[in-house]
Amino acid sequence: MIIIIQCKDRVGLVADISAILSEAGLNIISMREHVDKAGERFFMRLEVDGTTDEVALEKSMEQVLPEGALIHVNPVPDKKIVVMVTREYHCLADILIRNSFGTLGAEVLCVIGNHSILQKICERFDIPFYLIPYHEEKAVSEREIIHKINSYNPDFIVLAKFMRILSPAFVASFPNKVINIHHSFLPAFAGANPYRQAFERGVKLIGATAHFVTDELDEGPIIAQQIIPVNHSFTAADMVKSGKEIETAVLAKALRLVLNDRVFVYQNKTVVFE
Amino acid sequence: MIIIIQCKDRVGLVADISAILSEAGLNIISMREHVDKAGERFFMRLEVDGTTDEVALEKSMEQVLPEGALIHVNPVPDKKIVVMVTREYHCLADILIRNSFGTLGAEVLCVIGNHSILQKICERFDIPFYLIPYHEEKAVSEREIIHKINSYNPDFIVLAKFMRILSPAFVASFPNKVINIHHSFLPAFAGANPYRQAFERGVKLIGATAHFVTDELDEGPIIAQQIIPVNHSFTAADMVKSGKEIETAVLAKALRLVLNDRVFVYQNKTVVFE
Amino acid sequence: MIIIIQCKDRVGLVADISAILSEAGLNIISMREHVDKAGERFFMRLEVDGTTDEVALEKSMEQVLPEGALIHVNPVPDKKIVVMVTREYHCLADILIRNSFGTLGAEVLCVIGNHSILQKICERFDIPFYLIPYHEEKAVSEREIIHKINSYNPDFIVLAKFMRILSPAFVASFPNKVINIHHSFLPAFAGANPYRQAFERGVKLIGATAHFVTDELDEGPIIAQQIIPVNHSFTAADMVKSGKEIETAVLAKALRLVLNDRVFVYQNKTVVFE
Amino acid sequence: MIIIIQCKDRVGLVADISAILSEAGLNIISMREHVDKAGERFFMRLEVDGTTDEVALEKSMEQVLPEGALIHVNPVPDKKIVVMVTREYHCLADILIRNSFGTLGAEVLCVIGNHSILQKICERFDIPFYLIPYHEEKAVSEREIIHKINSYNPDFIVLAKFMRILSPAFVASFPNKVINIHHSFLPAFAGANPYRQAFERGVKLIGATAHFVTDELDEGPIIAQQIIPVNHSFTAADMVKSGKEIETAVLAKALRLVLNDRVFVYQNKTVVFE
Repeated sequence: MIIIIQCKDRVGLVADISAILSEAGLNIISMREHVDKAGERFFMRLEVDGTTDEVALEKSMEQVLPEGALIHVNPVPDKKIVVMVTREYHCLADILIRNSFGTLGAEVLCVIGNHSILQKICERFDIPFYLIPYHEEKAVSEREIIHKINSYNPDFIVLAKFMRILSPAFVASFPNKVINIHHSFLPAFAGANPYRQAFERGVKLIGATAHFVTDELDEGPIIAQQIIPVNHSFTAADMVKSGKEIETAVLAKALRLVLNDRVFVYQNKTVVFE
Repeated sequence: MIIIIQCKDRVGLVADISAILSEAGLNIISMREHVDKAGERFFMRLEVDGTTDEVALEKSMEQVLPEGALIHVNPVPDKKIVVMVTREYHCLADILIRNSFGTLGAEVLCVIGNHSILQKICERFDIPFYLIPYHEEKAVSEREIIHKINSYNPDFIVLAKFMRILSPAFVASFPNKVINIHHSFLPAFAGANPYRQAFERGVKLIGATAHFVTDELDEGPIIAQQIIPVNHSFTAADMVKSGKEIETAVLAKALRLVLNDRVFVYQNKTVVFE
Repeated sequence: MIIIIQCKDRVGLVADISAILSEAGLNIISMREHVDKAGERFFMRLEVDGTTDEVALEKSMEQVLPEGALIHVNPVPDKKIVVMVTREYHCLADILIRNSFGTLGAEVLCVIGNHSILQKICERFDIPFYLIPYHEEKAVSEREIIHKINSYNPDFIVLAKFMRILSPAFVASFPNKVINIHHSFLPAFAGANPYRQAFERGVKLIGATAHFVTDELDEGPIIAQQIIPVNHSFTAADMVKSGKEIETAVLAKALRLVLNDRVFVYQNKTVVFE
Repeated sequence: MIIIIQCKDRVGLVADISAILSEAGLNIISMREHVDKAGERFFMRLEVDGTTDEVALEKSMEQVLPEGALIHVNPVPDKKIVVMVTREYHCLADILIRNSFGTLGAEVLCVIGNHSILQKICERFDIPFYLIPYHEEKAVSEREIIHKINSYNPDFIVLAKFMRILSPAFVASFPNKVINIHHSFLPAFAGANPYRQAFERGVKLIGATAHFVTDELDEGPIIAQQIIPVNHSFTAADMVKSGKEIETAVLAKALRLVLNDRVFVYQNKTVVFE
């Protein structure tokens, strides 16, 4: 059983929480805790052994924790996701493979693409693919996408190399639910064509960043980042190619963390209990 | 204030420990916990804010924790170490530098060498250096070393590239107190001349391992490991050279962890709360 | 155009080779060279711009290079591979995806499995799958496998988590053509169940090794290796899970290098021009 | 013997260069070559066995290479450097240690500081330390520094955490000779207080960048970069502390490469033959 808690910090929180668990006969297998001192904010993730009435446990917690505490006992054990793509296959294929073999930690409900090129790979895995190209009126396309997503009611929307900038209206529809993979080591090279920028600057490492999407382009809370070395012999195209490997790995890691309830969002940052 | 606990596991340990802290008005800043399920063993490291009578706190803990529990409230805040060396300077110099600028997390009491070559660097830093060469009778030399170490009563003995194998008698004199840096990614290439072995085998990575010393050569509990890439263009001598960088880094990391009370030893393994 | 050369070393080799290229009006884009001094062995990989009669070029080279020189001008540009598997999907799926999108650098001719569990994923990608279970007489099964492989005449055979030890007779049938992914950082933890071994030893890093298969179990020339950090919280099962990511990455890298003619085998080691 | 060449690219360069070496009876041990196709620029680094008249060899090369070619046969074998510092010891101490044991690949002539705090460590190693504090008139201080540097005539000036921005006039005095370590993964977090910026942004990796200094702040050609993981538990101060390790390592690597004649500067980028 997994329990996640986020609330205002005060003395005695751990004692109160663990007393409730002890009374319920639950044994703590793993406990991760963090206090943001500046923000006086408390974060906890527990794995416990044993069974109990989940609703009753949440109620008991609510009574002792500070007002407004976010408490989830066994948060959605089988999460559902919608994936959005453009043309590049690498992140999508990785997700489809894991989904197919039951190791993704979530179910892929459907894939939405603004190009048709990735329809075939979805068909190979019997996953519905919806082509929603961008019309001249971006708002029209986005409304169609939002409508489609809502018809599936996913826990998360994964932008697996979706190369269009989403409007604030879109983002506001799914707060803290949209996960993006950006093909650079943010905040370096935000915006378009980061590998070209990296090439021009002559960097010796390139990276990828998985983050939640907010209104500010490439400015949302960072979940995971990774890098690989490059050198003078890399063209911008070589960097794109090498970058794909790291993009796939970073998005896979971010999804594993998020789907496993290891990521808390707070003040445009994340607390990640790896 | 730091508190470390190791004991038999049972339900309610965290509740009992945190209740004691709460009663003492201590606020938990950071809590790391691990349960070895197979061994039913509980490990905890706490950082708490506030002041209290340390001896009384230990007593309170003893009363609620399982018999035989190891409890340390504020374990030796300023640790002391003796360093043993042979000819290579890189690990020793790193330790002397950090010691000199107060960032080692310990005080270097003296250096013992079986060659005189590193005497000069010790003098530069005003650290006593004792030359104790190995006689034909190894036991005689070791007794002299033990005598010298005991006269300083250090918390840890650091083998910073000490290239002699210590006898079981020596090791038994300082249980879980001798830290060694081995110049390979153990258990690969245990024993002598690991870089030569690595070269012969044509590996693509070489590593270093910091571990506590036990009777079994290079078989003690591992504290930290790290690697660097090598390739066909490396001679065995190049590997030695590159290896020194990683040896220095790994030993520095292991010392930081141990001196910061983040390492627990149990059944020839370590629990490390990084 | 790619040119690879392996021969006995002598003074003036580079001058002679580059003179031939210059006369043929070929411009050197990239030149990688290595001399094994102990073995007096010369290795070179060239990428050149321009067109010429490939057979004539090889002939010209043969006339100036030491007897017995291995020279390949544009070695098999579109390589073909057969993949052998048991039960684990991760390496196979990665290969099938890359094959499907034309980024593998080779064509997958068929997959041979000793269990049927991976048949479905092959069908999704329209790749023939042959189930050849192991009979009591291992030699019988191996003869069947060899027969099947030979009917496809591949350039390389990739053991993508094929969990049976191949006999010397099998290995001898395909010298320097069988590539294996071993789930440890060789030479540590050769043989069966390396993650269990790693768990028991309490290592802080686990790895994977891609190598050519020779008669000696896990002793063949190493192509690529990589590691990831683990800690006390990892069970042996967690290590297996984390290990799969690194196995996939290392095998993918090894295949990219081999299929791109960047790997030379010499005296149970490899020269790899990355 | 080491030979480095940078010139306009054309067909037959390698043939012409290697013919000259062959005629001189020099055996090529290692040859690294790069062509910047967009810039039609050729870079080469050779290690050769044998002895010859160096001046005559350079002359022979000049006759066959394109006009304006930069050719150095055995470029300054024992380089000399001046180090500039402010308050932080880690990079300076690493340089002094290597200098003291003859493994730096250069001789440290003197250290110039704008604070006195690092005078003591220089004295321990018998290296002259000059205190040149910054006056209200920056230009006055810089002229004093330039004067002091010129009195030593070093091959390179190493800014080992020199925390003042040098004027264009200063930089112009030592083109491609000033090496800086910047405490971030450039171009992320250029300018002041990068760790504070990294903390605010909630990044999961921090880095360091060694680069040549140009007029544009933190915009010069990058020599080496490296990163280490951080997480939510790191304060800005923790990042500073962890960052020091990586700063030391990256500057050490950059110096090793530059002092070993492995770095070419071209159009605000570097070609690095590692």
